[in-house]
Amino acid sequence: MLKELAKGSREAARVLAAADTALKNAALLACADALEANAGTILAANAEDVAAARAAGTKESMIDRLALDKKRIEGMAKGLREVAALPDPCGTTVWAERRPNGLDISCVRVPIGVIGMIYEARPNVTADAAALCLKSGNACILRGGREALRSNTAISEVIRSAIEEAGLPRDCVSLLADTTREGAEAMMKARGIIDLLIPRGGAGLIRSVVENARVPVIETGVGNCHIYIEKTADPETAVAVTYNAKTSRVSVCNAAESLLIDRDCAEKLLPLIKAELDKKEVVLYGCEETRAILGKDVLPATQEDYAREYLDYAMSVKVVSGIDEAIAHIAEYSTGHSEAIITQSYGASERFMREVDASAVYVNASTRFTDGGEFGLGAEIGISTQKMHVRGPMGLTALTSMKYTVRGNGQIR
Amino acid sequence: MLKELAKGSREAARVLAAADTALKNAALLACADALEANAGTILAANAEDVAAARAAGTKESMIDRLALDKKRIEGMAKGLREVAALPDPCGTTVWAERRPNGLDISCVRVPIGVIGMIYEARPNVTADAAALCLKSGNACILRGGREALRSNTAISEVIRSAIEEAGLPRDCVSLLADTTREGAEAMMKARGIIDLLIPRGGAGLIRSVVENARVPVIETGVGNCHIYIEKTADPETAVAVTYNAKTSRVSVCNAAESLLIDRDCAEKLLPLIKAELDKKEVVLYGCEETRAILGKDVLPATQEDYAREYLDYAMSVKVVSGIDEAIAHIAEYSTGHSEAIITQSYGASERFMREVDASAVYVNASTRFTDGGEFGLGAEIGISTQKMHVRGPMGLTALTSMKYTVRGNGQIR
Repeated sequence: MLKELAKGSREAARVLAAADTALKNAALLACADALEANAGTILAANAEDVAAARAAGTKESMIDRLALDKKRIEGMAKGLREVAALPDPCGTTVWAERRPNGLDISCVRVPIGVIGMIYEARPNVTADAAALCLKSGNACILRGGREALRSNTAISEVIRSAIEEAGLPRDCVSLLADTTREGAEAMMKARGIIDLLIPRGGAGLIRSVVENARVPVIETGVGNCHIYIEKTADPETAVAVTYNAKTSRVSVCNAAESLLIDRDCAEKLLPLIKAELDKKEVVLYGCEETRAILGKDVLPATQEDYAREYLDYAMSVKVVSGIDEAIAHIAEYSTGHSEAIITQSYGASERFMREVDASAVYVNASTRFTDGGEFGLGAEIGISTQKMHVRGPMGLTALTSMKYTVRGNGQIR
Repeated sequence: MLKELAKGSREAARVLAAADTALKNAALLACADALEANAGTILAANAEDVAAARAAGTKESMIDRLALDKKRIEGMAKGLREVAALPDPCGTTVWAERRPNGLDISCVRVPIGVIGMIYEARPNVTADAAALCLKSGNACILRGGREALRSNTAISEVIRSAIEEAGLPRDCVSLLADTTREGAEAMMKARGIIDLLIPRGGAGLIRSVVENARVPVIETGVGNCHIYIEKTADPETAVAVTYNAKTSRVSVCNAAESLLIDRDCAEKLLPLIKAELDKKEVVLYGCEETRAILGKDVLPATQEDYAREYLDYAMSVKVVSGIDEAIAHIAEYSTGHSEAIITQSYGASERFMREVDASAVYVNASTRFTDGGEFGLGAEIGISTQKMHVRGPMGLTALTSMKYTVRGNGQIR
């Protein structure tokens, strides 16, 4: 029950907020060592999860997300060590000024408090999220998917013990064992217990959390990303970026889902692009003009197809009259994640970057770069597609708030 | 009806996001001139509001907030001109880096979109909020109190016309004429229409918005602010800061509402403080020890008294055993606005600043300084007491989001 975790989490958050970086790093390194040392226990628990999932007829792609092996546990440990090596955002001064009346005002980064995470199958999120929260000085309450409960319990218990041995409260990291819908709903309504809730998973989960939460939420990672090929586009770049953005990893939120192409170059470029996408057997859903150019094995696209995040070897295609129509189409269908233009026109590139409203707007590069590591932020806890608090890849700084400290010598107003 | 405003506001937001600073400033200056030129119309509308409020038996303190005169209209115009003179946050680069793969990544401030404001009696908020939203590139939908509807309508129409003459859409500023509870609730539920909702008013309004909103909200301005007099406090500073924080303006959120004092100095200092507060006839609600020292005209304090934001010549008082009890008491009763310690101890000052969780934490200065102007941020739209997005006084930057622009030359991943 969430209420039973609340007191421990709040108290752990208080202690953690006052902990210095060295102590937090020591705890992270201890967790990494403990994960490796207890790999046997974790793998045994995971094997039970996998067996149960198989018995329940779970798809192999899902089993693949769920299953751990020694290498994946080493990957988690490596992730924890990388977080330990990142700079600590807490206590850094964002802004400071001595005011005319002599008051010394500083704006300093501080932890948020208790962060809740609701996520789905992958057990490695348990370790990743715990590490990022701990490093940023926040306690966390984690609630993973039902099918990974044994794995998540084993991982979190190893982490909790290691944190305690390092000298911090074990409740810095808690796992909510209630994997029912009620468990998730309790987290969404936990005002006074959870200061920030981050859902990580499919579009359905995220929509449900955003619409039902009574605590602050960060909307993450639904990406209906577009590649817009403007008429001056370099053909090679157009083909290479589209192919990369669509096929290099189809299951991720920064993969491209929709292709827009100017009428002026559609006839020449669409066949080249299709030939490339055919290598991966990408299914295309196209407008009438696309089908006239590429033939009838392009399926007719509906409005829903333009709105879909396929997360698969599939893509919608639309021929447009120019940048105005492209920007308007993106404004209508975009989820505000990552949008790219391929162009050699200065004017088109500048207009696209200014007018397209998304976390990341690209000129002549693949949308696949929207990622904390690629942006140089280090590990990330997700990609925010909302505008409040943080937008784009969320590194450690996204898990902090600020506070003004004011030093005076008797000033009154 | 909110739905009727939605299309105009969204379209205005799109135009405004692309408008350069010079155009926005020209519109602000035009609004200032127009308010002065149309003072007669506005005052006539306001006179009707005031007459209706008087007829309804409204308290004089409320009438005072509602009533405009030539000077107050000049004050609004001056406010608009000051906002025009502030730097434009939009388009400023927060961070930029050339990545090892040659991608040029910039994180740039952008407007949020459409900002909703729900506020109470003062008609000047209409002009202030419109100005801050416009300067930060956001369209706004304003919903003031019922008793000020004629005044707000007159002010907003003057502003809308001036904006239009300056070359921007008049729907950059809209007033929701529906001042019923349903009007406010429609704003709270307006996903897709309103990107951020800011309530400005009493604790009841703010609680209602925070608890019911389905759009992102910034919680503002409820302040149960404490002055904690630590045992090493300089007596003069203790008396002067307490008197100033409590009495210089009792109706504002940064006024002190509760006094904590160490047992070691209570007997000496409480009588000095009471003598000063008696000048303004401040009613005290004290613990038993306070009453033993100050006598029975100090009323006995209940738990509710310690939680109350009096906004009046009243204050709760508690004798504490030391900084641990003071910090614990503040953690329990604080609204996270502004908290002050009076001390000459380095250790106590550092502990208080680190451990007290509030927007602004003061050492030896009055809580009354928590204000955009005093902090050097220029005009403010409110004071955030939440941790997400912005904390403390909210200047223009608080009304912006960010966006990553990525310039490449064919990079794929």
